[in-house]
Amino acid sequence: MNLKIAVLPGDGIGPEVILQAKKALYAIGEVYNHEFVFEEALMGAVAIDKTGSPLPEQTLNLCLNTDAVLLGAIGDPKYDNNPNAKVRPEQGLLKLRKELGLFANIRPIKPYKALIEASPLKREIIEGADFTIFRELTGGAYFGAKTLNEEGTHASDLCEYSEEEITRITHLAFQSAQKRRKKLTMVDKANVLETSRLWRKVVQKVSENYPDVKLDFLFVDNAAMQLILNPKQFDVILTENLFGDILSDEASVITGSIGLLPSVSLGEKNALFEPIHGSYPQAKGKNIANPIASILAAALLLEHFGLTKEANVIYKAVEKAIEYKVVTVDLKPDSKFGTNEVGEFVSNFI
Amino acid sequence: MNLKIAVLPGDGIGPEVILQAKKALYAIGEVYNHEFVFEEALMGAVAIDKTGSPLPEQTLNLCLNTDAVLLGAIGDPKYDNNPNAKVRPEQGLLKLRKELGLFANIRPIKPYKALIEASPLKREIIEGADFTIFRELTGGAYFGAKTLNEEGTHASDLCEYSEEEITRITHLAFQSAQKRRKKLTMVDKANVLETSRLWRKVVQKVSENYPDVKLDFLFVDNAAMQLILNPKQFDVILTENLFGDILSDEASVITGSIGLLPSVSLGEKNALFEPIHGSYPQAKGKNIANPIASILAAALLLEHFGLTKEANVIYKAVEKAIEYKVVTVDLKPDSKFGTNEVGEFVSNFI
Ligand SMILES: CC(C)[C@H](C(=O)O)[C@@H](O)C(=O)O
Ligand SMILES: CC(C)[C@H](C(=O)O)[C@@H](O)C(=O)O
Repeated sequence: MNLKIAVLPGDGIGPEVILQAKKALYAIGEVYNHEFVFEEALMGAVAIDKTGSPLPEQTLNLCLNTDAVLLGAIGDPKYDNNPNAKVRPEQGLLKLRKELGLFANIRPIKPYKALIEASPLKREIIEGADFTIFRELTGGAYFGAKTLNEEGTHASDLCEYSEEEITRITHLAFQSAQKRRKKLTMVDKANVLETSRLWRKVVQKVSENYPDVKLDFLFVDNAAMQLILNPKQFDVILTENLFGDILSDEASVITGSIGLLPSVSLGEKNALFEPIHGSYPQAKGKNIANPIASILAAALLLEHFGLTKEANVIYKAVEKAIEYKVVTVDLKPDSKFGTNEVGEFVSNFI
Repeated sequence: MNLKIAVLPGDGIGPEVILQAKKALYAIGEVYNHEFVFEEALMGAVAIDKTGSPLPEQTLNLCLNTDAVLLGAIGDPKYDNNPNAKVRPEQGLLKLRKELGLFANIRPIKPYKALIEASPLKREIIEGADFTIFRELTGGAYFGAKTLNEEGTHASDLCEYSEEEITRITHLAFQSAQKRRKKLTMVDKANVLETSRLWRKVVQKVSENYPDVKLDFLFVDNAAMQLILNPKQFDVILTENLFGDILSDEASVITGSIGLLPSVSLGEKNALFEPIHGSYPQAKGKNIANPIASILAAALLLEHFGLTKEANVIYKAVEKAIEYKVVTVDLKPDSKFGTNEVGEFVSNFI
């Protein structure tokens, strides 16, 4: 197979972890005779520094014209505590999601056997947990109108949803549930928010097409609690953009490290693969960042294009790295292995 | 001391747990020579059923003219899955918060020694955790304009904040931090939301009055993770309404049961005390609901009026109940004790 992949290393540890993902893909390409062509482009703080824009035209065009996008991480603290910054790295990511129409962000959550002890949760709580979060990614308060009055004393964010936006991701979530344990949990705040009530109505309507899937509803406050009290109750979770942002990071604790989780963002025509962790600027250049989430993002990419066997080899390699404790310090505080060594182990295994 | 207390038992298990809180207050009154006068009124689904309104005029007037409000719980599933319901129990609670000007909801989180094993989190993660969440309660998406178009295909919720709304709760949070370990963590989503950027700016400004308090910032997705990974890092958490709703329920897992946590909501002139759990309709009338959160809400009420010694007696009684395992099934699955027995134990101890 020939694939043209746009690579956006981004900020902080982004470039170092993405390098390991590329190494894994190169190794797969060699062994299984595929041609992966990578084209790098700027996004995030690094793009602002070099071009003034967090998502330069050129980067967007590249992404629109490749088979897939592989993203590292974006964000820089110099923008976070400056409420007056006019341009911010995150705007690049949000614009990219919007322009590529990536309306569904999908994050599988499943603890690794060898890492069960690394979780802050007790073994009996997480052993056997296995669920997927479907987060709507191009709507809600992320993209609604924002205001700040002239005196800078009053601000607002608008959260909006249309039936159409809800319907398309709901179908994906139900289809996934059909292939899994046939349970879908819609998370919202329908006792307070009008948009949540619309979500509930639309999801109920769509559910009629999937009579074999059991649908239930949870308020987001309760869901945040249930994820920790009893994560095994979940199969597929469906939720809007901001709730999904919060719950999927929270759910990462089940696996013991956010450094292990990849996600895919899907649109009608495009797909973007990324680790769910941030740019972790304190770790930049220190060879301590965990590359596994990035490498697994590459595996999700292979799966997306039907290369299941190849993806499984990567999953296997990662499992072995974890089993042999070839992992970074987030997973083993006294580890002697760094970003590079973990990446090498994985690509050598392939 | 003479106190006139409005009691709103509400829905589901509300009435049964509130009864135990009243029993504890009666016992305190007898032993320490205070006169607590309770006046009951309707709120929630039960008020809709009887009067058509979730917060009848009479209830509101009573609350405006008493020293404090003691609330059970409100909510009924018959409204949750009916997106077309015109009146909902929650509207009563939101209106009450607004009309009484209860802008700060304060939830202390601290695990009980005897219950550490009941938490889904490992002992070493939670032992020693001790923090308080300050949640803004009368602003944000809860109270902003809501729209639903005529066809019912498009909805919106507006999240709004003003400098003034942020300033007043921020002062309370800093003052609390000064009396504690002098650390305040502001939780927001300033990389995406305009209101969060306003929060950050205002909190930074207010912080100049509290140079002895260390201020830091966390994005809400990260905060949802950090609460579980390392809850001991927190002292005072400050956040807006919806984030506070999610994070404070999530944080309840640290104590092993949401049935243990009370909260106080403060305004300029009024104060409302309640368990943080919901109306738990499945348990209604079964004598299985945990009354401790309600009883502790009564203790917070005593503290609020300077009756620290009396409050401490209740804390002590609750600790003993837990130590002797006179607890409900949520804390001990094979427990023979019910709501009533736990309440009796506590008031007898006083
Ligand atoms: C960087 C930020 C804008 C982003 C989000 O909130 O969507 C991130 O947290 C994520 O989840 O991908
Ligand atoms: C019942 C509901 C409206 C309420 C809220 O969201 O504020 C509850 O969850 C709470 O936290 O007090």
